[in-house]
Amino acid sequence: MTTPSSLESLIEALRCLPGIGPKSAQRMAYYLMQRDRPGAQRLADALQLALGALRHCERCNTFTEAEICDRCSSTKRDASLLCVVETPVDMNMMEQTHSYSGLYYVLMGRVSPLDGIGPRELRLERLLNRACDGVVQEVILATNFTNEGEVTAHYLTEMLNSRGVRVSRIARGVPVGGELEYVDPGTLAQAMRERRSLVD
Amino acid sequence: MTTPSSLESLIEALRCLPGIGPKSAQRMAYYLMQRDRPGAQRLADALQLALGALRHCERCNTFTEAEICDRCSSTKRDASLLCVVETPVDMNMMEQTHSYSGLYYVLMGRVSPLDGIGPRELRLERLLNRACDGVVQEVILATNFTNEGEVTAHYLTEMLNSRGVRVSRIARGVPVGGELEYVDPGTLAQAMRERRSLVD
Repeated sequence: MTTPSSLESLIEALRCLPGIGPKSAQRMAYYLMQRDRPGAQRLADALQLALGALRHCERCNTFTEAEICDRCSSTKRDASLLCVVETPVDMNMMEQTHSYSGLYYVLMGRVSPLDGIGPRELRLERLLNRACDGVVQEVILATNFTNEGEVTAHYLTEMLNSRGVRVSRIARGVPVGGELEYVDPGTLAQAMRERRSLVD
Repeated sequence: MTTPSSLESLIEALRCLPGIGPKSAQRMAYYLMQRDRPGAQRLADALQLALGALRHCERCNTFTEAEICDRCSSTKRDASLLCVVETPVDMNMMEQTHSYSGLYYVLMGRVSPLDGIGPRELRLERLLNRACDGVVQEVILATNFTNEGEVTAHYLTEMLNSRGVRVSRIARGVPVGGELEYVDPGTLAQAMRERRSLVD
């Protein structure tokens, strides 16, 4: 035993971070202990605080320190629109566009049979109850345009349509500022198929 | 304010980790809170434990939980050899070769004028005292073959030679298993200059 056990434990514990392998964890541990002990202390405190304070919003699933998050309890949002996203980060991205003032539902995942995540694991019946509460008029699917995100959107469409809920999907196409030369063929084909009439 | 403050603090605190920017910190924070709360708790505990337990070895500078590290207090090591490395990780790499049984001195850095790290900041006089203690017969420089590592080695050579200490440098050359076709010209030129006679 030449590496002290507390250092070994720290290296091991750092590997719980996504994308961090043994080499990076080792580098981080040595860095923290050698160059940034105050940072390490702040990190330990922040983890402890977040573990104690953070919970899921009863309505939209996102992280909050209260029972219902600020957004869900706001009276300024349009409660007739419900935007479904995979993660809180996706919700933040959407908010940053300042182009949507409805409410959200965060799936906290996606349908992914390979990972054993089905409709039951995502507790989609909660979303269904929410969508059928009489207030929501339109469910906007904003899951990712990955295979899994598309499968999730497809599944939700079937589920919601069968209950008579109006469902829409955010648009696919060439990104704003995008040059056709650099757009992948799949996106371009999709943009062609979903072209919009310009008659006004 | 839509992101809870404890989550904001965690994201901010994660940025003390080397190589972690705002996007990665956000991803890590959400991941920990959503998918691995036990891991987050282990990390907080491990940080706290390491902060309390880890210190520098009085003799070689590496991390230890005692006053003198296991290696320095071992009687099985050859105390006449002192290998100088930049970091504890470098020391571990050297140990893994099982080709060295002497002692170490960890600089915990390198001479790097651009970063304001000079001989004084590295407290090289401690190394000098150690090298001149009458026990050490040879100081082996195993700093990196980067510009800064080379500058450090050069500086140490001057300093130790002027005190009459025998100094050596680990060899540069083509890596074991290396093919000349894929070796960079600088390394190849060095390998040519430092060629060894094969007379036995």
